[in-house]
Amino acid sequence: MDLAITNTLAFTLADDRLGILEDATIAVDSGEIAFVGPSSEFDGNADRTIDGSGRVTMPGLVNCHAHTDLTLLRGGAQDVPEIEWMNRSLGPLAEAMTAEDRVAGARLGVLEALRSGVTTVGEYATDVVELVENVYEPMGVRVVAAETINAVDDDATDLGPDEPYPLEEERGRAALERTEELFDRYADHEQVSCLYGPQALDMVPPALLEEIRDRAAKRDRGIHMHVAQGERERRQIEARYGAGETTVSVLEDLGLVSERLLAAHLHGATPGERERLAAAGVRMVANPSSIAAIDGVTPPIVEYREHDGVAGVGTDQAPGPGGHDFLRELRTTALLAKTERGDPTGFPAWAALRVATIEGARALGVDDRVGSVSYTHL
Amino acid sequence: MDLAITNTLAFTLADDRLGILEDATIAVDSGEIAFVGPSSEFDGNADRTIDGSGRVTMPGLVNCHAHTDLTLLRGGAQDVPEIEWMNRSLGPLAEAMTAEDRVAGARLGVLEALRSGVTTVGEYATDVVELVENVYEPMGVRVVAAETINAVDDDATDLGPDEPYPLEEERGRAALERTEELFDRYADHEQVSCLYGPQALDMVPPALLEEIRDRAAKRDRGIHMHVAQGERERRQIEARYGAGETTVSVLEDLGLVSERLLAAHLHGATPGERERLAAAGVRMVANPSSIAAIDGVTPPIVEYREHDGVAGVGTDQAPGPGGHDFLRELRTTALLAKTERGDPTGFPAWAALRVATIEGARALGVDDRVGSVSYTHL
Repeated sequence: MDLAITNTLAFTLADDRLGILEDATIAVDSGEIAFVGPSSEFDGNADRTIDGSGRVTMPGLVNCHAHTDLTLLRGGAQDVPEIEWMNRSLGPLAEAMTAEDRVAGARLGVLEALRSGVTTVGEYATDVVELVENVYEPMGVRVVAAETINAVDDDATDLGPDEPYPLEEERGRAALERTEELFDRYADHEQVSCLYGPQALDMVPPALLEEIRDRAAKRDRGIHMHVAQGERERRQIEARYGAGETTVSVLEDLGLVSERLLAAHLHGATPGERERLAAAGVRMVANPSSIAAIDGVTPPIVEYREHDGVAGVGTDQAPGPGGHDFLRELRTTALLAKTERGDPTGFPAWAALRVATIEGARALGVDDRVGSVSYTHL
Repeated sequence: MDLAITNTLAFTLADDRLGILEDATIAVDSGEIAFVGPSSEFDGNADRTIDGSGRVTMPGLVNCHAHTDLTLLRGGAQDVPEIEWMNRSLGPLAEAMTAEDRVAGARLGVLEALRSGVTTVGEYATDVVELVENVYEPMGVRVVAAETINAVDDDATDLGPDEPYPLEEERGRAALERTEELFDRYADHEQVSCLYGPQALDMVPPALLEEIRDRAAKRDRGIHMHVAQGERERRQIEARYGAGETTVSVLEDLGLVSERLLAAHLHGATPGERERLAAAGVRMVANPSSIAAIDGVTPPIVEYREHDGVAGVGTDQAPGPGGHDFLRELRTTALLAKTERGDPTGFPAWAALRVATIEGARALGVDDRVGSVSYTHL
């Protein structure tokens, strides 16, 4: 054995609750977990032993949705109405950033995440390969990367909410090709996994979404997408697809609602739509600080879990939560859920630990390797 | 001059907004502010000069309501229904603490507060003089101390919510005498001010409250009291004072609703009651993390300010917010207010800075000395 953590209180997350083992030993061999059980049953030798007495040992945390490349924009775009936020606040600020700014910000963001216990990040960025190569690989942090596929014309940043964005399919198609390169480059990579990343239904033409749907099926990959993220998207969808249509209804028509879909946000969906998505196996990510700050809304994570939906938590972009401190984000998740429900038991600490570990890992599709302390896990 | 901070961006809080001065100099002489203005107009010499360029200079923050003696209970009493919280969770834990635990916890709590920019704390504790002597005085932190006046029988910790607490007036009277000693000891003290501290209407008999009211008038002091802090109190007040009576209606009858009153919480009051309190000059303290965690409620600080009421923010006791990080508490205040209003502009950053400084100082009655950067301030 390379490493043994002995005499510890373990939260294994390997059953339906926290999987608590008292006086446990966890041993690692060649980077994989080789023993989990009572210290009295461990008879191996380890090159290195950590005395875990008086401490908790638990899986690394999983930040399911982050744009760490925007970390230097922390403190920007505050106190702005949602309808103006993306196009007139975040957008212009983000345009002023250089590639170097983005890498530096991502490095800071990933350090903040690590410091708060995160070992896996669902990263969502344009030219995400730059972040994977320059930040995640050298820092040894697991990443589930999505290359942003967005077809909105570059010159369209100052549109009002009711003017449909002009879409350039070629722009989206180029991002799709970058995604394919990413997949090829990191096929069967130990530390890097990839997802398709169409940004949102109002930002990608339907033909391209169908193409992504088919390629995802062919490659057996997931699709990480912002879904129903507020009033601006709602108006864009009505303008583009007709009155009465919603993001969820159009995604259903396009055949995108399936176990492959990882839907960030969902606060703009109706309760009935969220129930249908959960039943179809769609996984969700809640980004509480960001959505509270931008939309004045509590993400529907408690409701989604009540529908037996799989849900994780993310820090989104720094202008929302102020950074990538994941423990602070879990605290915010719990307080917002409790006040929304008017119930101090509405989101207990054990639920926060579950969404931060095993359920987040399921949301990102990496629960075969992370999110619980089990044999063969990393 | 002893000290000059030069070329700084100053938030003076000395007008109706933030009182921003660019390229300002602030100079201090014998512990008082002796110059605030454009750097070009400062012609004094200072023994020590701090180059404030690229930095903000602003008043120290004011934590209006804290029980720092309970800081070692951080992480305790989580995810408990409000109706059971005080008597069956916090109470038994607090009883297990020694005087040494309380002082050690207070020292930690005040360090956490200092680290987040707080220089004045509204402390609320039994035997508060122990904390003032052993923590606040040696650490050089300003304190507005209230000695808890509570007449609930010591053996009454396991009562159900509908069993009226047995009150022992003598117990409360002994605490009132400790308060008078505190006042005598710290009369005209530079760093320590004092308030009367009847714990809550359900915990103090009316005759004693009238006595406190009269003594407060005679000494010209404020009264710091938990007011309308939830369902348990509501039931106790109905049981004690009759159906239809509320904490606010009884306080009005007892003549306690005046500019002297500093009311913590108020989430159990009706909007109409809060409007009456604000009109009467009652100051309020919101404790967002604590009240979200214990009651599942967003404190009505935005509403109270809309009624032109003076309001500050506090960290309450550590099992609520997890400690005394005041910047985190301001962040929580803003996010809860935004989601309660469904409005991302519902509690902007400038409002957070105001309640954290000048308005908090007004709530505690120390705005003649702290909360803004003005001549003669400390």
